[in-house]
Amino acid sequence: MKKIAIVMGSKSDAEVIILAVKTLEFFEVPFEVRVLSAHRTPNEASTFADVARSSGFGAIICAAGKAAHLAGIMAGHTTLPVIGLPIKSSTMDGLDSLLSTVQMPSGVPVATVAINGAENAALLAVQMLAIEDRSLQLKLEAYKAEMAEKVLKDDSEIMAVLKIKNK
Amino acid sequence: MKKIAIVMGSKSDAEVIILAVKTLEFFEVPFEVRVLSAHRTPNEASTFADVARSSGFGAIICAAGKAAHLAGIMAGHTTLPVIGLPIKSSTMDGLDSLLSTVQMPSGVPVATVAINGAENAALLAVQMLAIEDRSLQLKLEAYKAEMAEKVLKDDSEIMAVLKIKNK
Amino acid sequence: MKKIAIVMGSKSDAEVIILAVKTLEFFEVPFEVRVLSAHRTPNEASTFADVARSSGFGAIICAAGKAAHLAGIMAGHTTLPVIGLPIKSSTMDGLDSLLSTVQMPSGVPVATVAINGAENAALLAVQMLAIEDRSLQLKLEAYKAEMAEKVLKDDSEIMAVLKIKNK
Amino acid sequence: MKKIAIVMGSKSDAEVIILAVKTLEFFEVPFEVRVLSAHRTPNEASTFADVARSSGFGAIICAAGKAAHLAGIMAGHTTLPVIGLPIKSSTMDGLDSLLSTVQMPSGVPVATVAINGAENAALLAVQMLAIEDRSLQLKLEAYKAEMAEKVLKDDSEIMAVLKIKNK
Amino acid sequence: MKKIAIVMGSKSDAEVIILAVKTLEFFEVPFEVRVLSAHRTPNEASTFADVARSSGFGAIICAAGKAAHLAGIMAGHTTLPVIGLPIKSSTMDGLDSLLSTVQMPSGVPVATVAINGAENAALLAVQMLAIEDRSLQLKLEAYKAEMAEKVLKDDSEIMAVLKIKNK
Amino acid sequence: MKKIAIVMGSKSDAEVIILAVKTLEFFEVPFEVRVLSAHRTPNEASTFADVARSSGFGAIICAAGKAAHLAGIMAGHTTLPVIGLPIKSSTMDGLDSLLSTVQMPSGVPVATVAINGAENAALLAVQMLAIEDRSLQLKLEAYKAEMAEKVLKDDSEIMAVLKIKNK
Amino acid sequence: MKKIAIVMGSKSDAEVIILAVKTLEFFEVPFEVRVLSAHRTPNEASTFADVARSSGFGAIICAAGKAAHLAGIMAGHTTLPVIGLPIKSSTMDGLDSLLSTVQMPSGVPVATVAINGAENAALLAVQMLAIEDRSLQLKLEAYKAEMAEKVLKDDSEIMAVLKIKNK
Amino acid sequence: MKKIAIVMGSKSDAEVIILAVKTLEFFEVPFEVRVLSAHRTPNEASTFADVARSSGFGAIICAAGKAAHLAGIMAGHTTLPVIGLPIKSSTMDGLDSLLSTVQMPSGVPVATVAINGAENAALLAVQMLAIEDRSLQLKLEAYKAEMAEKVLKDDSEIMAVLKIKNK
Repeated sequence: MKKIAIVMGSKSDAEVIILAVKTLEFFEVPFEVRVLSAHRTPNEASTFADVARSSGFGAIICAAGKAAHLAGIMAGHTTLPVIGLPIKSSTMDGLDSLLSTVQMPSGVPVATVAINGAENAALLAVQMLAIEDRSLQLKLEAYKAEMAEKVLKDDSEIMAVLKIKNK
Repeated sequence: MKKIAIVMGSKSDAEVIILAVKTLEFFEVPFEVRVLSAHRTPNEASTFADVARSSGFGAIICAAGKAAHLAGIMAGHTTLPVIGLPIKSSTMDGLDSLLSTVQMPSGVPVATVAINGAENAALLAVQMLAIEDRSLQLKLEAYKAEMAEKVLKDDSEIMAVLKIKNK
Repeated sequence: MKKIAIVMGSKSDAEVIILAVKTLEFFEVPFEVRVLSAHRTPNEASTFADVARSSGFGAIICAAGKAAHLAGIMAGHTTLPVIGLPIKSSTMDGLDSLLSTVQMPSGVPVATVAINGAENAALLAVQMLAIEDRSLQLKLEAYKAEMAEKVLKDDSEIMAVLKIKNK
Repeated sequence: MKKIAIVMGSKSDAEVIILAVKTLEFFEVPFEVRVLSAHRTPNEASTFADVARSSGFGAIICAAGKAAHLAGIMAGHTTLPVIGLPIKSSTMDGLDSLLSTVQMPSGVPVATVAINGAENAALLAVQMLAIEDRSLQLKLEAYKAEMAEKVLKDDSEIMAVLKIKNK
Repeated sequence: MKKIAIVMGSKSDAEVIILAVKTLEFFEVPFEVRVLSAHRTPNEASTFADVARSSGFGAIICAAGKAAHLAGIMAGHTTLPVIGLPIKSSTMDGLDSLLSTVQMPSGVPVATVAINGAENAALLAVQMLAIEDRSLQLKLEAYKAEMAEKVLKDDSEIMAVLKIKNK
Repeated sequence: MKKIAIVMGSKSDAEVIILAVKTLEFFEVPFEVRVLSAHRTPNEASTFADVARSSGFGAIICAAGKAAHLAGIMAGHTTLPVIGLPIKSSTMDGLDSLLSTVQMPSGVPVATVAINGAENAALLAVQMLAIEDRSLQLKLEAYKAEMAEKVLKDDSEIMAVLKIKNK
Repeated sequence: MKKIAIVMGSKSDAEVIILAVKTLEFFEVPFEVRVLSAHRTPNEASTFADVARSSGFGAIICAAGKAAHLAGIMAGHTTLPVIGLPIKSSTMDGLDSLLSTVQMPSGVPVATVAINGAENAALLAVQMLAIEDRSLQLKLEAYKAEMAEKVLKDDSEIMAVLKIKNK
Repeated sequence: MKKIAIVMGSKSDAEVIILAVKTLEFFEVPFEVRVLSAHRTPNEASTFADVARSSGFGAIICAAGKAAHLAGIMAGHTTLPVIGLPIKSSTMDGLDSLLSTVQMPSGVPVATVAINGAENAALLAVQMLAIEDRSLQLKLEAYKAEMAEKVLKDDSEIMAVLKIKNK
């Protein structure tokens, strides 16, 4: 099976990234986590993307905040799908990260998920690998079913919860 | 090869969608174009997503504007990767479409591209199919090389262009 | 009397919803509270809306955050008035929820109230039922009068309060 | 049957309002159109709202742009449901109108529709009247079905349209 | 001397308003503080504005948050200068209050100050009264000089402060 | 009577300013129009403000776009009321001008009107002069009455207009 | 004298860039214009920055739109000052370009000018070279004086212009 | 060597400024820290800029929040490069400061860095001085190399960190 790369622009993004890690572990999809900065270690970042496909990766998740260039730069150096995960920083409420990640020019797409949406970045990577992998498809369906179960359970419980709170 | 679905929420989105169509044609990736509205034909939209994988699709591109729910709803009904293409409408400069598409809750990702980024939506779909398809990988690399060629050619020509304009 | 449905997209919205519950209790309007997700339990959500009128509901309040599709999807499946209650989440200060809820395309309205405006969502539902219900009209007028009384009382007290704070 | 009021803050809003007028005519719902300004004719606007219910109105649609206070002011003077229709003006792309209309304080709801969403404002009014009116319910369902038909027809035609454009 | 009115839309605005109160006290300008809501006590608010000039007021400061209509409504009922003080609420970071207050249509101005800028609202009122009042002019100039003094003192002290912090 | 200064940061603002000029002419309030730039002729701008009161001015209207510093700088050099008129430029839809003008720090207020709200800037200046001028008060009331007349006339005519358009 | 590089991410930016070219020509500062894309020719862009200082450049102006990564990437590959010129594209009114350019993480600054502010990008480059170049300082002062002259001339003419327009 | 000026509009900005101070100390670049307000001590601010070059300064860093006019005003009074450092204040998340600083009109550039980006403001100043200073160039390269080292070290450590957190 192809591996997924989880690349963060700064170690401080690890707090958000952890949910992507857990999700890939849950799906038993092999992955590697890297700290590679588009601005501080640009050569390492470019080289990683240049050889990512030949290194066995199937997709690259890039997490970065503020002027978030990591996903875009990676996408310039590979034809693998690149998943952009905008990280909220201390100003602008994540809008800068989102726009820097998603508004890519024609020819170089970045598959952007919600601000701080680490679980979804990982799920999207799994969905990509699952296109040709029946076993992953079944796991994704089970995951979806479990989510639904949880909502249905919440649905049953909510009246009680509200009544307790309400007193 | 898996097919790509291009679904638009309204026929008025066709003007933007056309570039996604041309891109898939260029890559000789089979595709279908549909008009399915999350709000006006919700059952048809849901059913399409429910059976998309078994109908031979590998990914679904969803184009919609304003309160753009199409991609999110499709994503709720399939475990295929869903690509969200926010369409700029007459107010809010595309911000409403972008946020409605990208800010998905945990568990249900939408791979969002730039506002009106139809070519990138198609390229992203091709990249997904290419993960396990060597022939598509080569085409993507050729496409990337051609883009680079074009920029390099522009680079050579620009001084002349500027000088002509400058007079 | 018709019932009001209060549907939230996630149990975490209960904290905000509680004020809608209390308001409907105050008006002695029958209601049901449900957890139904446009993305995680789309079939349950659609089915709920499909039969809402025949189940005795007069209006549906939908609370959701981020890419808030719940109200729009419900509105696609019913001709009952749907009230959209955008919930503020951890990024974007509620703007994503608001735009996702209010910017509905022609033909499928959602009656949107303020971000986290749960009391107003409930009041709006009561106002709708009151169009043909004299008894509810009187209650609404009493409620309005009481609000005015409270402001008038605050008006009397404010000088004193300010003077105490001011020392 | 209760009447619907369509009130605009300025005659220049008539261009947008016309779609609300046509929609109410289509549903054969009686209505009146007024120009009443929260800022220029505040007494007339207040008085209109004060007696709107006793004058036979069931809901009030208020269209206004910029610092759009009309809907909020009307809502302060009546317990009828007030539908806010934010009008896009020459600056701020409608965001000022939207926020001024929708962000109402607790106790005084305004049912806000999309920027320039005149058809939806009218449909929402019809939905409110339809809560207790079986005949209007049937008309709304027919309207919804016709919208769906149109999308289904567009769906059939789109491939051809795209192919023609594509040459 | 003319009085200044400080009107707040809700008692919860008192926390911000207090600085306006202190500033007017400092200038020994007579003032009254009122709680009058454009939405909850619209008649009291309108009436206040209708008779404000004849009651001896020279300007009205209106503090309100969210869909902040108070200043605009007052301005519709008087030809006195109305000063709008947008209050930041729990969502939208004050942008809703600011746009609702400042974006007034032609013919009905509101003199808007910064979000939560209570001191400036009061100073602006004093400046208006000072146009024809030499004594207030002198006080304003003294106030301005004192502000400058404080900055000059900070300028002298800053190197030391920075050095202490820096260790 | 005190004069009003209308200062624009660039000659290109004259197009918007003209409505302020006409309004002051209507009220027969003496005024001067100047082009003074906070950035290009800072000394002339500062000096103008320094001596504005002693030159017989009662208030200063400052029109500027983009990073609109003119009003703020003038306010730093005078204790006259300064009215800020944010001008929409070719990017950012006026938001930059508005925030640069209105968000003044404590101690130095700018009375900000709507983006491109030249008529209101002039009216606000007239209202300030009118605080102690009975004749201007009467003119303002007549102006207000005429505005109301116009709306009432529009109100009478609108049904006809709509019907004509509607055919 | 050091050269200035003007790099644009796409030939379509040439229309804006031309004013930077003219400004550098005016100051007789040597420059080169290049088309280098952070996404389409990332290696050429990186290499350019890597050797920019040794190639005789003193500063690099980078013009790019949408998710504008060019300036940031260049700044990662050089210790020369990099000037970011955000270009307005067809959506988001330049906000995406601005935030992508200016919100750089600690350690890798980009000196950002206004959206489409090509003249200022060039002037800033000249100011940097002028730090140690008396001749350029004099030219800058002359340029500033000429700007002031132009405003003073506009100031003289404006009354006449307004009067003509006003008729 | 030329000195760098660090000017803040208010003593409360010192908390952010400290990182600029430390950075300049690290590079052994001489500097002065001043508190000079564009609004409260406009003459001192203007005079400082007027004589900054002749006082031995090579660049001026201006930190200010809200309607941040300091950098723009300084830039109007000098031909030295002015670096704008927008400070986040209690409302608007820094957007007001950013737009007020960066959106300068043609002819008067401000080199703007990220909101609260004090380290980058200092680095940019050092980069400017380094254009003609080989010793500073070497220090900048060492600084850049150290940053890279830190990221590479984080890259090595991250897997371990994630695994510990993950338990």
